[in-house]
Amino acid sequence: MSPPFRILALSGGIGGAKLALGLDRVLPPGALSVLANTGDDFVHLGLHVSPDVDTLLYTLAGLDDPVKGWGRREETWTFMAALKALGGEDWFLLGDGDLATHVERSRLLAQGLTLSEITERFRARLGIASAILPMSDDPVRTRVKTREEGWLDFQPYFVGRRCEPAVEALDFAGAAEARMAPAVAAALADPALAAIVLCPSNPYLSIDPILAVPGIRAALARRRVPVVAVSPIIAGQAVKGPTAKMMRELGLEPGAATVAAHYAGLVDILVVDEADAGVAVPEGMAVHAAPTLMRSLDDRTALARVVLALAGRPA
Amino acid sequence: MSPPFRILALSGGIGGAKLALGLDRVLPPGALSVLANTGDDFVHLGLHVSPDVDTLLYTLAGLDDPVKGWGRREETWTFMAALKALGGEDWFLLGDGDLATHVERSRLLAQGLTLSEITERFRARLGIASAILPMSDDPVRTRVKTREEGWLDFQPYFVGRRCEPAVEALDFAGAAEARMAPAVAAALADPALAAIVLCPSNPYLSIDPILAVPGIRAALARRRVPVVAVSPIIAGQAVKGPTAKMMRELGLEPGAATVAAHYAGLVDILVVDEADAGVAVPEGMAVHAAPTLMRSLDDRTALARVVLALAGRPA
Repeated sequence: MSPPFRILALSGGIGGAKLALGLDRVLPPGALSVLANTGDDFVHLGLHVSPDVDTLLYTLAGLDDPVKGWGRREETWTFMAALKALGGEDWFLLGDGDLATHVERSRLLAQGLTLSEITERFRARLGIASAILPMSDDPVRTRVKTREEGWLDFQPYFVGRRCEPAVEALDFAGAAEARMAPAVAAALADPALAAIVLCPSNPYLSIDPILAVPGIRAALARRRVPVVAVSPIIAGQAVKGPTAKMMRELGLEPGAATVAAHYAGLVDILVVDEADAGVAVPEGMAVHAAPTLMRSLDDRTALARVVLALAGRPA
Repeated sequence: MSPPFRILALSGGIGGAKLALGLDRVLPPGALSVLANTGDDFVHLGLHVSPDVDTLLYTLAGLDDPVKGWGRREETWTFMAALKALGGEDWFLLGDGDLATHVERSRLLAQGLTLSEITERFRARLGIASAILPMSDDPVRTRVKTREEGWLDFQPYFVGRRCEPAVEALDFAGAAEARMAPAVAAALADPALAAIVLCPSNPYLSIDPILAVPGIRAALARRRVPVVAVSPIIAGQAVKGPTAKMMRELGLEPGAATVAAHYAGLVDILVVDEADAGVAVPEGMAVHAAPTLMRSLDDRTALARVVLALAGRPA
């Protein structure tokens, strides 16, 4: 029997996947679909790497590394050492187990399967109840205009240059021509859709590429179900990653109010950390303060329950 | 300064690589070129795997696994376990370190480098003094006609079916159109070439594909330097692999005499094991008995010295 209602959560990688895991754990099996950013995807060593999709797969399958905070647990690094010895590119770390995902995905893409079909196959094999939906099967590539080095592809900026160059602008190459993946269109049109959640991912690097795929921003703008967002900024700081630094570089005040303004017209309720209670939000947006720092699995499920209660679907 | 003379050794994988290592160790650095079979090459998981070239690279670099007898030492298997969990093909074992060779080779092939250029790059990176020369940069694919299952590609026969089906015939698809790799042509025409060695590889599966590349058999037939071969068969048994079984299936008596007859017109001196002293050889071929079972590195270098002395180039 299919779940009586469905929740659609937009997510990037690490930060967003924490809430996605919480939602996965508290919702009835199969009630959650996670709409994943593919703007970070790139071809490396001839292999299609889809970092946010992979983070979601590993996190929801319980394969993620809780110590390192990224990649797979019980990972080994024999491939990287051997690649380095052969003179191969070693700026992007690929663990031995992680590599299986990229090799198998690349093989299946070459056979003509779509990224969506492959992700669904991996989901089923890994025993994940929630759907993971790449935003598009067409290439969308986030590019970063930096003061020091001009336009950089995302991974060379993010991993290669460790986000050090100052960001002046962002571009999602290919987004205008990209088609929503069929499963995304179906999820947005699903009569059982009960709420949409924006996970605490980087609004500029992780959520905006999803919204840039034609039809997705419009679907949120004319929503008939509540949209609840969680701010990734706590007291002016990003929990992880370059969000706050990037906001300053873009001339924005790093804070929950800036996140709220960014989501104006798309979000009904913004969940901010208790440290940000009382933050100003645009007219028509409600704000709710709750503990949003997710250290433990209990933190993740607790925040998921807060979000679902605000969306009118207490779990 | 380049070495005063050069030795060219034809080799397949494991068995041949043992003598190649002995030759590499006793010859002046750079005096040895190993002409490698590429008939076992195949594309697996979208990656170009070149088993005999890789065995030679690992063996000459001291990276081979002396316990398992194949693959790399200190290998890990995280990739295979993760691939299996994703539902990928797991009949061909790829270690994590081994995978780096295939991924980097495939990347460089896609950039337009030849197999020869890539092998030379890997050789230099791994600090190997001897040249490793793929027989051709064009695809040659060994196929096996079996009684039970008809024509099989080599790796599905060799690894997938563990050589169980009975062999009726062999074919080296593409060989007639394949061009000798430029470095092979240069090695055969090199005025410094002093001897050619046929390593104790399977004559049918490892040496014949090399000889099937137009020009190579002819170069041996009209040789102006001694050709010394080492029999892979000892007292009717193969040291490793399916040579003896395959000889029986092909209607041949498994023995050094059959190897001698197979190499008639191409080889001046056949080295057989002491167990086979007195074996009949074709007219014009000399035979020399020596210990040919190579268990230790000393065994390998001792046999290399025997071969080089017979070739008139004692090391």
